[in-house]
Amino acid sequence: MVKCSKNWEYILAAVLSGVGLLTIGILLGHFAIPKGTDEPEAPSWVHSLLRDLDEDLLQDFMNQVEATRIRENLRTLSSQPHMASTDGDKELVQLLLSRWKDPKTGLDDATEVVYDVFLSFPDSERPNSVAVVLENGTQIFISREKEENLTVDQADPRVVQPYAAYAPPGNPQGKLVYANEGKLSDYEELVRNGIDLNGTIAITRYGGTGRATKAINAAKFGVIGVVVYTDPGDINDKKASAEETYPYSWYLPPSGVERGSYNNHFGDLLTPYYPAKDFTYRIPEDQITGIPPIPTQPIGFEDARTLICSLTGPAADDTWQGSLGCVYNLGPGFQDDGLFFNTSEVQVNVYNQRRIEKSSNVLGLIRGSVEPDRYVIYGNHRDSWVHGAIDPSSGTAVMLEITRVLGKMVKEGKWRPRRSIIFGSWGAEEFGLIGSTEYTEEFFSKLQQRSVAYINVDIAVFANVTFRPQGTPPAQSVLFTAAKQVQTPGDNPIPLYDNWKLHYNRTSSIYGVIPSLGSLGAGSDYAPFVHYLGITSMDIAYTYDKSKTSARIYPAYHTAFDTFDYADKFIDPGFTSHQAVARIAGNVLVRLADTLILPLNAIDYGEMLETLYKAVDHEYIVEDLKNHSVSLVPLQNAISQFKSAAAGLHQRIARLQEEASPSPLQVRMVNDQLMLLERAFLNPRAFPDKYYYSHIIMASRSSFIATFPGLADAYISAKKSGNWEDVHQHLTIVVQAIENAASILEPVA
Amino acid sequence: MVKCSKNWEYILAAVLSGVGLLTIGILLGHFAIPKGTDEPEAPSWVHSLLRDLDEDLLQDFMNQVEATRIRENLRTLSSQPHMASTDGDKELVQLLLSRWKDPKTGLDDATEVVYDVFLSFPDSERPNSVAVVLENGTQIFISREKEENLTVDQADPRVVQPYAAYAPPGNPQGKLVYANEGKLSDYEELVRNGIDLNGTIAITRYGGTGRATKAINAAKFGVIGVVVYTDPGDINDKKASAEETYPYSWYLPPSGVERGSYNNHFGDLLTPYYPAKDFTYRIPEDQITGIPPIPTQPIGFEDARTLICSLTGPAADDTWQGSLGCVYNLGPGFQDDGLFFNTSEVQVNVYNQRRIEKSSNVLGLIRGSVEPDRYVIYGNHRDSWVHGAIDPSSGTAVMLEITRVLGKMVKEGKWRPRRSIIFGSWGAEEFGLIGSTEYTEEFFSKLQQRSVAYINVDIAVFANVTFRPQGTPPAQSVLFTAAKQVQTPGDNPIPLYDNWKLHYNRTSSIYGVIPSLGSLGAGSDYAPFVHYLGITSMDIAYTYDKSKTSARIYPAYHTAFDTFDYADKFIDPGFTSHQAVARIAGNVLVRLADTLILPLNAIDYGEMLETLYKAVDHEYIVEDLKNHSVSLVPLQNAISQFKSAAAGLHQRIARLQEEASPSPLQVRMVNDQLMLLERAFLNPRAFPDKYYYSHIIMASRSSFIATFPGLADAYISAKKSGNWEDVHQHLTIVVQAIENAASILEPVA
Repeated sequence: MVKCSKNWEYILAAVLSGVGLLTIGILLGHFAIPKGTDEPEAPSWVHSLLRDLDEDLLQDFMNQVEATRIRENLRTLSSQPHMASTDGDKELVQLLLSRWKDPKTGLDDATEVVYDVFLSFPDSERPNSVAVVLENGTQIFISREKEENLTVDQADPRVVQPYAAYAPPGNPQGKLVYANEGKLSDYEELVRNGIDLNGTIAITRYGGTGRATKAINAAKFGVIGVVVYTDPGDINDKKASAEETYPYSWYLPPSGVERGSYNNHFGDLLTPYYPAKDFTYRIPEDQITGIPPIPTQPIGFEDARTLICSLTGPAADDTWQGSLGCVYNLGPGFQDDGLFFNTSEVQVNVYNQRRIEKSSNVLGLIRGSVEPDRYVIYGNHRDSWVHGAIDPSSGTAVMLEITRVLGKMVKEGKWRPRRSIIFGSWGAEEFGLIGSTEYTEEFFSKLQQRSVAYINVDIAVFANVTFRPQGTPPAQSVLFTAAKQVQTPGDNPIPLYDNWKLHYNRTSSIYGVIPSLGSLGAGSDYAPFVHYLGITSMDIAYTYDKSKTSARIYPAYHTAFDTFDYADKFIDPGFTSHQAVARIAGNVLVRLADTLILPLNAIDYGEMLETLYKAVDHEYIVEDLKNHSVSLVPLQNAISQFKSAAAGLHQRIARLQEEASPSPLQVRMVNDQLMLLERAFLNPRAFPDKYYYSHIIMASRSSFIATFPGLADAYISAKKSGNWEDVHQHLTIVVQAIENAASILEPVA
Repeated sequence: MVKCSKNWEYILAAVLSGVGLLTIGILLGHFAIPKGTDEPEAPSWVHSLLRDLDEDLLQDFMNQVEATRIRENLRTLSSQPHMASTDGDKELVQLLLSRWKDPKTGLDDATEVVYDVFLSFPDSERPNSVAVVLENGTQIFISREKEENLTVDQADPRVVQPYAAYAPPGNPQGKLVYANEGKLSDYEELVRNGIDLNGTIAITRYGGTGRATKAINAAKFGVIGVVVYTDPGDINDKKASAEETYPYSWYLPPSGVERGSYNNHFGDLLTPYYPAKDFTYRIPEDQITGIPPIPTQPIGFEDARTLICSLTGPAADDTWQGSLGCVYNLGPGFQDDGLFFNTSEVQVNVYNQRRIEKSSNVLGLIRGSVEPDRYVIYGNHRDSWVHGAIDPSSGTAVMLEITRVLGKMVKEGKWRPRRSIIFGSWGAEEFGLIGSTEYTEEFFSKLQQRSVAYINVDIAVFANVTFRPQGTPPAQSVLFTAAKQVQTPGDNPIPLYDNWKLHYNRTSSIYGVIPSLGSLGAGSDYAPFVHYLGITSMDIAYTYDKSKTSARIYPAYHTAFDTFDYADKFIDPGFTSHQAVARIAGNVLVRLADTLILPLNAIDYGEMLETLYKAVDHEYIVEDLKNHSVSLVPLQNAISQFKSAAAGLHQRIARLQEEASPSPLQVRMVNDQLMLLERAFLNPRAFPDKYYYSHIIMASRSSFIATFPGLADAYISAKKSGNWEDVHQHLTIVVQAIENAASILEPVA
């Protein structure tokens, strides 16, 4: 029996051992032996391919962005004038390269790319001027050569004389007329007033139309020289005295002069569509269009007051009056009983020289880990007119802080984006977006095939009141998401989204009241990306409270007063708005680079198409079109097709997002649809007369009807010329583009 | 002891049970329990994403291709005339749809897409003719209305009268002159011979230049009507008697007339660049270019003999003489002592009507399993001039056999390609590649973004001697691979590759002696794919032994003798050459759709660029260019850059292929580089005067210098005009395109 009990013990022990062995076996089998060839171990990339944005890491990035560092960046960047191709510019190229190659906070790679670009400069030996001369040729007045030295910076010998870049040299002399803003209608109005413009000099104020256009229009009326000035009514909320202006406020001092490129096109003027390399074919200079045909010179309002307040002739219309403190007469010529004589004439002396100079882009790279062949591009120009603290260094100061934080995360091995990020510091933007345009010309296929989006931060802070970006519709959603995560600076922080909505909003047919995204024109380096290559683009900035100022732009724009001191004292003391811009721009950048499914929205394009359609769907237009056998029904159908294709795509995306492990190629497929949508609106044959403008929706428009630009312009033109064929043709172009775009969003097969 | 021994037994049993339990445990642990969240099971797509081409399945496909089924397809397809938009054409649309929707052998989807296209037809009530009339207006000769009825088929009332599509109606009358091939130099030669061409009718033979060009050139010299005929010397190896020709041989009977589109452009003539839908803008008819400005009519050589052998005037030059069995005199007018009188004139009576008709494409789809957003497109036109057995039904018969076998494999669940396959049965090709062009216009973005390649099989078998495809360089390698796997028909089979090399070869700087791939012109539906969209394209056919025939093309081309009987008896008895074409075209198609890494080769483009460079790198050209400040060094550098980028890409691909489990996104990345390479050669602004031609390398060229077309033409033109700016500009365009293409191949980041 003992034995028996012993036997039971044996059996118990055996059973227990058995259970133990079975367990060990199960454990061994499960953990120690890899699955065999039939079901092999998952390759290492299985999980990395599906990794999504890390919100903690993004928060970490935003926390690391420091206002004081942006301030220091700005101080360095604006310490000296750095006009395109000058020594100051070259020094900044080296600064960018050294920052981006820094072993601890730099990027993966940084390179300089040089182009040979066509620029225009005043002659330092023979300063331009606007003079008043007696019949015997004696000068009795001459405009200031440069701005007054108010804060030391203006005394820097490298401050370039105010001038109208690309205006031709010459010394035309004639009686002065006041031509308001130099619009075609302004000159027509003068003619209606019985004024013979032949042989006159026109003085015009900035605003209302492009810089070059004032002179191009003038020449059509026989005007032989143009003077341009900034009216205190347009820039200074009418403040015109020295005591009310910088260094006592942000307003423009009386001696301040806005420099600028007098050029209606963008890109290097001698090499349209080709990168401006040494071997590149250049068109003859006399084939350049869109620049002043006659000598043109900008002056400050102190000098303008002397000229305008002395004019004779009938008083200008109320809408033409400005804030110089006198009645603006039209001319021609001066009053006999004032500073000058009726026989006194105005001489515009321009000694500008056009020449080909070397200008560089600096390109920085963070290599993508999973999809290195997808590019999120972030850029700003580097060149200024003078010290350029706000324009463009505020943007560059922000960019350098973003690259410092991201570079550090990369160098420390904490982060590498899914997609590649390219940073661009563009050259010679002030002369006409030249560096960015040459870049898009040199790599047009690569950029069109691989670019997710382009983010531009040029002037980061116009004013420190509210966030207000511009962009094409697919960018709206990611801007909204980011704007909800960044707080306004100051004591009562609210999300940028709310502050933006407070200042700029609209009622969306989809979302109700939302912040209103501005439209991209061609005012900065996003232009070639969106208009020429059809890449979804946005421009990010902090700006004014429009209810508190009527300034056309921040007052020191393009003058010798756009300095670090000005930025530090009046634009953004404490640099907290700069910090907010760096956070949101970086947030958008990281989202575009890291989110598994691209945060671009096709439905929002549908809403824009609908809005554009409504602008043309007015009874009288429809009736007009019908009378000429043009129907809007195909357009309406195309938009419906687009909207349902967009809705369908986002439904498929939502289903894909519910899957635990969606196929990475399914993800890539919908991402390609989102990324390439904007490309489908390009038609390089749609606007043969407009350099680079190929985007059917975003191209420039002359007509007042806020609809598809080609259609709007053809309609207005047909009303005059009777050429309704062009209207039908442009309607076809629009319908084809929308149907083509819809087909990008539809199921692929 | 017994107990002890019993104990040992127990222990043994326990140990054995233990081992057993351990084993069971291991097995359970390994197989029955899924890996946990730390090391989750690989998602289901892990292996499918990397699945490569299945060679056995491809072999199986080729084995299933049956010659007899192709023969039966051809009999059905060519059973009646099926000119574009006619009832015969519409019936074939239904045939295609029913085949492709067949539940057992059909595709995933098939749809009909209708366009409203501009066509041109003779008037069945008032037949066109070429007549000889006396001074009093009496007709003493009139050309045949249609071909002679030799094999029943020609008696079909639906056989369209021979005509020159798009030639304008009219009844010009004048003295006849013989103008050889109607080239500009031919008319100049007549003028040099003292012949006043004003008011004359020119008779020209097919060949030497485009159909429409003969009349366009003629009109410049005052000629008022044109007659075109096929000389037996050009098509029949000089055979001209009824007994030597069909139905006794493959040669053209004396009454045979080549119809054709007299149209230098492609695509619908009223809607260039827009899909020809009902709402589409149409240019006014008088703005159409590239068609005859004067009445034009084709005739057979029987009628041509009557006219030409009666001509008076000086004998034509030896090179102008043909095989009508008489001396060809130049005219003007007839001999007085022959059939006609010297006062007899020739009247060209044309009653063609141009009108907009509905024409359909039929699109078939096999959905891709892994990358449905990548398209391999395979197409052929459906419309013929008459029965069109060879042109185009031989190609359609092959396509239907390929879709039957592939469709069956899909329906049986044996196969689904990695990428999507689109089959296109294009409409109205004979009038100018209209259906395929409208398709590319309607979906230009989608097709540019997603198309891997386009395979065209129009005339599948010109003659049953050798395989000879045409294509752009990236297609060469896959054609070689496929050609090594398909055997020639007959008793001594050899690989198509060897047979091709035997008949058409060249010495490659990379591979030594290899088969020579023909160049794509604009002769079939590949034209819009390659020239307008920059999609890698190829045209696949079996063809002649050039040493045994000098025929310009197969003799029954575009005549009422291009029938099933003709094909069955003379072109490919047994249809084994058709079978070989189906096998190789299907092989190429499946390779492009299924191979993990796309079988396209970038290095072969480098060799072509080098060849084009060598053609211009001749001492006198280089000297000429240097004298006008144009250097070829940038071109040479760009080609070097391209070649090293291509070599680098293929090295990276080779390394990727060595990996056991490469990342599917790495694979997609290199595939995108290969797929999109050809797109980088597109520049829609390079040739503003040539509709659709945007491909810098493949565009049409007038110059005799076999180099980059824009450069070659600008050079020849500069030699006359002195406009060397254009040469420099076109050199820039070429260099920019090559550098841009190189950047596609370089590492992406």
